[in-house]
Amino acid sequence: MSRLDIKHGIIEMGHGSGGRASATLIEELFIRHFDNSLLSQGNDQAAFNVPAGRMVISTDAHVITPLFFPGGDIGSLSVHGTINDVAMSGASPLYLAASFIIEEGFPLADLEAIVISMARASKAAGVPVVTGDTKVVERGKGDGVFITTTGIGIVPADVDISGDRARAGDLIIVSGSIGDHGIAILSSREGLEFGTAMESDSAALHTLVAAMVADVPGIRCLRDPTRGGLATTLNELARQSGVGMRIKETAIPVKAEVKGACELLGLDPLYIANEGKLVCIVAPEDAERLLTIMQKHPLAQNAAIIGTVCTDAQQMVVMATAFGGKRVVDWLAGEQLPRIC
Amino acid sequence: MSRLDIKHGIIEMGHGSGGRASATLIEELFIRHFDNSLLSQGNDQAAFNVPAGRMVISTDAHVITPLFFPGGDIGSLSVHGTINDVAMSGASPLYLAASFIIEEGFPLADLEAIVISMARASKAAGVPVVTGDTKVVERGKGDGVFITTTGIGIVPADVDISGDRARAGDLIIVSGSIGDHGIAILSSREGLEFGTAMESDSAALHTLVAAMVADVPGIRCLRDPTRGGLATTLNELARQSGVGMRIKETAIPVKAEVKGACELLGLDPLYIANEGKLVCIVAPEDAERLLTIMQKHPLAQNAAIIGTVCTDAQQMVVMATAFGGKRVVDWLAGEQLPRIC
Repeated sequence: MSRLDIKHGIIEMGHGSGGRASATLIEELFIRHFDNSLLSQGNDQAAFNVPAGRMVISTDAHVITPLFFPGGDIGSLSVHGTINDVAMSGASPLYLAASFIIEEGFPLADLEAIVISMARASKAAGVPVVTGDTKVVERGKGDGVFITTTGIGIVPADVDISGDRARAGDLIIVSGSIGDHGIAILSSREGLEFGTAMESDSAALHTLVAAMVADVPGIRCLRDPTRGGLATTLNELARQSGVGMRIKETAIPVKAEVKGACELLGLDPLYIANEGKLVCIVAPEDAERLLTIMQKHPLAQNAAIIGTVCTDAQQMVVMATAFGGKRVVDWLAGEQLPRIC
Repeated sequence: MSRLDIKHGIIEMGHGSGGRASATLIEELFIRHFDNSLLSQGNDQAAFNVPAGRMVISTDAHVITPLFFPGGDIGSLSVHGTINDVAMSGASPLYLAASFIIEEGFPLADLEAIVISMARASKAAGVPVVTGDTKVVERGKGDGVFITTTGIGIVPADVDISGDRARAGDLIIVSGSIGDHGIAILSSREGLEFGTAMESDSAALHTLVAAMVADVPGIRCLRDPTRGGLATTLNELARQSGVGMRIKETAIPVKAEVKGACELLGLDPLYIANEGKLVCIVAPEDAERLLTIMQKHPLAQNAAIIGTVCTDAQQMVVMATAFGGKRVVDWLAGEQLPRIC
């Protein structure tokens, strides 16, 4: 088979035909970099053994723009995002499936850079991409590349984490500073500079979650506050559990650069997307112990208790502001930052 | 929450924000129609119990145009396509995950029609959509809607089907007429009429596969000849297994309308996509019994033995033509029918 000209080549419609050009692309780009025995078998599905027990599945489409940004790219993001969605059930992620929708004319060199980054993130996390699919759409019918990843994982026997398990009296923990991802994307998109360079917090949180559930298997809720930010995630959990939440603005970690950028642009860090943070709701008697465990992990050194769950028929999230007032923190309305993930 | 105006409304960027508009869309369209307890829990992943054993995962992006075609639409196709990829391992499909990439301005009425069709196909197959994701891209950065589905399934204990298991002497079976899907799409796309109306063969093949493996667990290879058609699928299997194949043109079922359309358009039915057919490679002693079982299933009444596997260092697929000659059947080169699935 003719080899790909990765340096100068572009994606052509034939790369999505299912014929010879598709096979070449799959072999020389995807199988080569993802490099695992399940994928290289060349079947339309990957088979593996599992023990009896509880499993989870999660899927996420990634349409972020720009494709390359400070702290990551669509490849690493699509690995981290789905690993995190799997991990937020307390599960240990096993495998990823990846589907690519590529626009005709997309440079093969860019595609390779994305696949290499994806493979690196997947190997670093120990979660291989074992099956996939590639489609090509005509120029002007896509936007470079969209990547949907789907992950599966195994939930430890004594863990039962779900958004509907928060109870009045529980404490709310966030694993670190909020808004980093959104502000990094926004600044790279608009060519803005906010003093120091902001990087996305994009990271795989499954080892943090594993450490958390190993010590506190009774964690009630875990969720990563991506699109819609911390504010929307808290509202989702309040609604699913039928509770209210009371949080303290001064307790929420926000980096000075993010705070500055938000003030400048009229944005609220509570609504800015994160890709390497989690929100945890836990019984009060477990909270301090869990916080200590989290702070020992490199991805949660700045974890903080930010509020409490309360009885509230209206399921409101209310924040005590830094100025001593109170403010209802609603769901994100409209769209602040399109295509952030 | 405000209700969706499905009749007159369109997709706006806010429907992909992860905020209130996203939640409304998910509740009133996806959760409502897919209608199962795992999805309605509202978590970012679905959890379920499995027995110990062998599982498979498969993923497929669907970018077909037009979105609605004779015999189906992108919704039913995205269910059938992934169920089939799971089933081609001999597995019984368990669950589907679905990710939608929707173009701003897409009519909600069309989206609902697609989701209803998808839900119907999923319910008919007994394979629920248990988790999903929705992203929105700006006008001109997508093309209506793209749907990636991922399926998981459980492989029966004594089944070991893989593209690398064909051996010289094995027989090759196709489950029915080839080319129906591609010609139906092409005719609806170009507004062509070929005498009678052609319909796509889009169908879920897992109950056919279940009947096949129940009787002949030793089936060597199964694959659905989608993009690239029968010719490309046979070449893939020949290459994976390191064998050659000898097929007989007169044994391959092709409907008269497909034959006629192909002659008119200069196409070859061997390269036309199918969405409800499978190729099976089986030991010679099992072939007749398996064929009889297949022909009893409504989706394989016209199943036929079309050739044999042979030793061939060059891994060629050679066809005895209807005119008594011989012809090498190569992989699909280039792109005959873009965006066929």
